Amino acid sequence: MQVTPWKVELESFSDKTYSKLAKQFGVKLIDEELLERIKKHTKDLHFMLTRRVFFAHRDLDWVIAKYEQKEKFFLYTGRAPSGPVHLGHLMPWLLTKWLQDKFDVELWFQFPDEEKFLFKKELTLKDTEKWTYENMLDVVALGFKKGKTHFLIDTKHAGIMYKHAVRVSKRITFSTAKAVFGFTHETNIGAIFYTAMQAVPAFLPSVLKGKNIPCLIPLGLDQDPHFRVARDVLPKLGYYKPAIMHCKFLPALTGQSKMSASNAVTAIYTTDSPEEVERKIMKHAFSGGQPTVEEHRKKGGNPDIDVSFQWLYMMFEPDNKKISEIYHAYKTGAMLTSELKHYLIDKVNAFLKKHQKAREKARKIVHKYILEVD
Amino acid sequence: MQVTPWKVELESFSDKTYSKLAKQFGVKLIDEELLERIKKHTKDLHFMLTRRVFFAHRDLDWVIAKYEQKEKFFLYTGRAPSGPVHLGHLMPWLLTKWLQDKFDVELWFQFPDEEKFLFKKELTLKDTEKWTYENMLDVVALGFKKGKTHFLIDTKHAGIMYKHAVRVSKRITFSTAKAVFGFTHETNIGAIFYTAMQAVPAFLPSVLKGKNIPCLIPLGLDQDPHFRVARDVLPKLGYYKPAIMHCKFLPALTGQSKMSASNAVTAIYTTDSPEEVERKIMKHAFSGGQPTVEEHRKKGGNPDIDVSFQWLYMMFEPDNKKISEIYHAYKTGAMLTSELKHYLIDKVNAFLKKHQKAREKARKIVHKYILEVD
Repeated sequence: MQVTPWKVELESFSDKTYSKLAKQFGVKLIDEELLERIKKHTKDLHFMLTRRVFFAHRDLDWVIAKYEQKEKFFLYTGRAPSGPVHLGHLMPWLLTKWLQDKFDVELWFQFPDEEKFLFKKELTLKDTEKWTYENMLDVVALGFKKGKTHFLIDTKHAGIMYKHAVRVSKRITFSTAKAVFGFTHETNIGAIFYTAMQAVPAFLPSVLKGKNIPCLIPLGLDQDPHFRVARDVLPKLGYYKPAIMHCKFLPALTGQSKMSASNAVTAIYTTDSPEEVERKIMKHAFSGGQPTVEEHRKKGGNPDIDVSFQWLYMMFEPDNKKISEIYHAYKTGAMLTSELKHYLIDKVNAFLKKHQKAREKARKIVHKYILEVD
Repeated sequence: MQVTPWKVELESFSDKTYSKLAKQFGVKLIDEELLERIKKHTKDLHFMLTRRVFFAHRDLDWVIAKYEQKEKFFLYTGRAPSGPVHLGHLMPWLLTKWLQDKFDVELWFQFPDEEKFLFKKELTLKDTEKWTYENMLDVVALGFKKGKTHFLIDTKHAGIMYKHAVRVSKRITFSTAKAVFGFTHETNIGAIFYTAMQAVPAFLPSVLKGKNIPCLIPLGLDQDPHFRVARDVLPKLGYYKPAIMHCKFLPALTGQSKMSASNAVTAIYTTDSPEEVERKIMKHAFSGGQPTVEEHRKKGGNPDIDVSFQWLYMMFEPDNKKISEIYHAYKTGAMLTSELKHYLIDKVNAFLKKHQKAREKARKIVHKYILEVD
């Protein structure tokens, strides 16, 4: 298995796989005790927590302890603009919004518009500029709090970020970067430096407010290496280690890998029409069902490997009772693959209808989210 | 011999040494023909040109040809703030001022305040911030044209510089940086990236004005490696290769090496008092004279290795007739070492008196030189 910021290859999407990865990454699994502690403050628990879509963490318990001592944390997450936003991107942001609402905290959202430019040969800065705008619309559309949500765009905000990236970079040798990210001598020097820029939002609010503020980063597991490095460096600069919550990957429609924005066949974009959504799911969603209806009725399907079921479980069916009913109906053969797919299609399209409307409205307010430079 | 941006070790300060270095660096020597061509536009020639204090170049003939085709160049030079400015720093800036005056061109002056922070373990950003201010005063004191001279401070101007540094960095592999600068796996990732920031002022004016403008960089030979890389990359981004004029190193008082700001014994700072100047030169200036007055009168001294004479020749005695008289008087023994030293002391102190006055006045106008960020 390979899980880096630039490549994700998994054996499967099973709990076993993720347990193995957690061990490999040296992160703790989120347990009942920790969830109960969170619930004390949030009253209820998001299904992405109880279902372990967010399954692992670093120092989340410490962040909660700090919160209990009246030291509020801030949230930090991000999106490297290089293409359209798909459902897999939205997943961790949905929980991020829930966290912002429940804890009433600030969110710093980074758009490292140089990252993919540096790592993808064919990508231009003109491309990433376009995608930065498009991607920001998706983030705004999710309803993050205005005034409490700050967008950082690396090339735009380098005036306040570069200096602090330089501080971080002095503490990271090529040797370390090579070991963590698998760089070679042919890697370009911008790509080598980049991780220092990604570390900055984890302590920039502390710099700007002149006091140490705990940072909690909800992210996809593939981004963990950046913060493994940052967690090593930041205390040396006098800041807290950022805490992390790790999200699983929403499977691609075909089920083989993490959803990728560059593969239109296996990803559903936030701008897809209802017809496109239906076509993609009907045609490509990997099924755990049997080859014929007759056989399916008799033997039943396997929801654990069925992508439609996984999408409902991870993202689109919050109702525990319903998801449980679907699981059993599908497993016993009472529910057919086509029925399951249509159930998902309706859910996705209902979500996207609302999202696309909010996304259009976002054009008028997106500038209010971008951190003002003075 | 070792000549890199971070280390200068020379065999000697002779013409032979510099010819060898020119060959090693692959730069052309400045010849009579080129000087005549410059003189057509400048009417006279600065003694640093005729005496080959500026001794080598890359594409200086091309810059003049462009100028003759009504395509004005801009000048670019800089100073990495890490300590006080000494006379060796001022030397190339004096010719830069002459060039600005004669050709009536813009000057972009970079203060890469992150460079020495990244390369010197003990240096803090607080230190470099202080030295940036102090060093800017010295530059302003030299009388560069207000409105035509733009200071770029890397951490302050990263908002406009980083994006373009990123463009450069994508074209430079670690392998190249390693070969050019001698980096190892233990070099920090900020230091590795840094050369991309140094490349930016060579084309930033072209970016800002939306047209390709030739760039001429007067610099110490040790800075050439940065621009060897930049000259390779910039045409790939659609900009002219920057042209370069290479300055020799003003010898340290002790004569062994390039003057260094970190060695108070061998350097004269722009803020030194007349007494300090006298003490340093009398005590430390390496002499080409004989051990006793008697012997000196008989055998004569050697001006070619005498630091006081070299300083007069390279920087403090513009008058060709006088420098020639001094050379012969010292060589024949008519002039004693103490007389030569006092001649230099008077020259240096006259220069510094004027400089220090201008330096104090600079405090009130320095902000007008810093490029405005909007």
